[in-house]
Amino acid sequence: MTIGEAALRGTSTPAEVRRSATGPTAGLAEGYAQANLIAVPRDWAYDVLLFAQRNPKPCPVLDVTEPGGHRTVLAADADLRCDVPRYRVWEHGELVAEPADAGGHWRDDLVAFLIGCSFTFESALKLAGVPLRYVEQGRNVPMYVTDRECRPAGRLHGPLVVSMRYVPGHLVETARAVTARMPAVHGAPVHVGDPAALGVADLDRPDFGDATMPHDGDVPVFWACGVTPQAAVMASRPPFAITHAPGHMFVTDVRDDTYRVC
Amino acid sequence: MTIGEAALRGTSTPAEVRRSATGPTAGLAEGYAQANLIAVPRDWAYDVLLFAQRNPKPCPVLDVTEPGGHRTVLAADADLRCDVPRYRVWEHGELVAEPADAGGHWRDDLVAFLIGCSFTFESALKLAGVPLRYVEQGRNVPMYVTDRECRPAGRLHGPLVVSMRYVPGHLVETARAVTARMPAVHGAPVHVGDPAALGVADLDRPDFGDATMPHDGDVPVFWACGVTPQAAVMASRPPFAITHAPGHMFVTDVRDDTYRVC
Repeated sequence: MTIGEAALRGTSTPAEVRRSATGPTAGLAEGYAQANLIAVPRDWAYDVLLFAQRNPKPCPVLDVTEPGGHRTVLAADADLRCDVPRYRVWEHGELVAEPADAGGHWRDDLVAFLIGCSFTFESALKLAGVPLRYVEQGRNVPMYVTDRECRPAGRLHGPLVVSMRYVPGHLVETARAVTARMPAVHGAPVHVGDPAALGVADLDRPDFGDATMPHDGDVPVFWACGVTPQAAVMASRPPFAITHAPGHMFVTDVRDDTYRVC
Repeated sequence: MTIGEAALRGTSTPAEVRRSATGPTAGLAEGYAQANLIAVPRDWAYDVLLFAQRNPKPCPVLDVTEPGGHRTVLAADADLRCDVPRYRVWEHGELVAEPADAGGHWRDDLVAFLIGCSFTFESALKLAGVPLRYVEQGRNVPMYVTDRECRPAGRLHGPLVVSMRYVPGHLVETARAVTARMPAVHGAPVHVGDPAALGVADLDRPDFGDATMPHDGDVPVFWACGVTPQAAVMASRPPFAITHAPGHMFVTDVRDDTYRVC
């Protein structure tokens, strides 16, 4: 499924998206929260949970499974082993597979973390009149590895990853205010303007996702991104991990609005 | 020091309060966040952190120490072993000591969790014109064990504990809105009105803290309380734990306002 098809499917249910989507999930099952996935052996679970606690902007935890489990309170009938459109399987920090079904890789000692995703605040941005250039352009959201180090936890360390959306200058404050109300899905931007301040050299060469085109008067706005734990996996090399592929999220049965605090 | 003296000391610095306070800390070092403490052996740390993640209203985690450590990013010069006015020491769920200094009880494998406290939103309530009856009356805030079970995590389970403040009826919505903006310190109330809905039989007999007197037209408003992990210790009986004594909080160097999300 391409993003073009995705846009057509904005009214799909979360269960339909979990069953059928194979590409990036932005715009799918509109109004429902999406989540990043990282599953690690039980022995590493405390490190991941503490890393998330110490870095709540990129790693807001929405749910944690029982060891070996594949069920989540975020979607009662979902199976985390196969209901993400595309997975990444990691061994000692190296990407070893990118399957559409992780059933063959799942282990009995895996603990899965579902982490808030900025796609979740996009319906609120749209409602507030903030256009989404990358969706208009049929792209995956661009993501960048910054030069900011997260606060380490146990054996886990790594850089902050951000997603970027071009926002018309006069709507930057609106975008900030709307997203600040949703801290469980990354909250307010971490930076507005000059990408060099984050150590990002070239917005046209994202580390994950696709480059997007600004309109005249657009300003780049950066939000903390749930790919950050994946960058920590790359940097910290746990023996094994399964994550989602960037942009290919787990779509939950929870309404976006649930994560708006006021 | 009594609460009466405490009121006089609203302009004390956090470091002064940490050094000298021996009683409840409501109203002390006004404008600075206060925190609940629970320290458990490293072997129980994942259970506590997961319990907190699964019950974010009562257990918003502000910081977690390294095993055996007694330093926190919330107050660089503080010593968690002695800078809380009063501690509780637990063995297998039984209270065995209530010292003013926990240095003699601290262990090399303890991991300390600092958890948001509703005292932190009280300056915002005051600013919004919401009176604090229990402070006016020179009492500790009343806390109640409810009949709502928290979502268990590993070996930890237990009931939700709430703090209660009488709020004039016409200010209940103000109090809700002000506190909703501060999810890291318990956020919006969990219940307004009839205490029986929480399984609380008699507001004049709190489980912790002191009974307070309503004014005509006051409504009881209940917020999730950071004593909840302490109730989980009582219910789940880990071999060892150190907590603060209810109402006797760790005063941080972090401004209240840091925890306001919008």
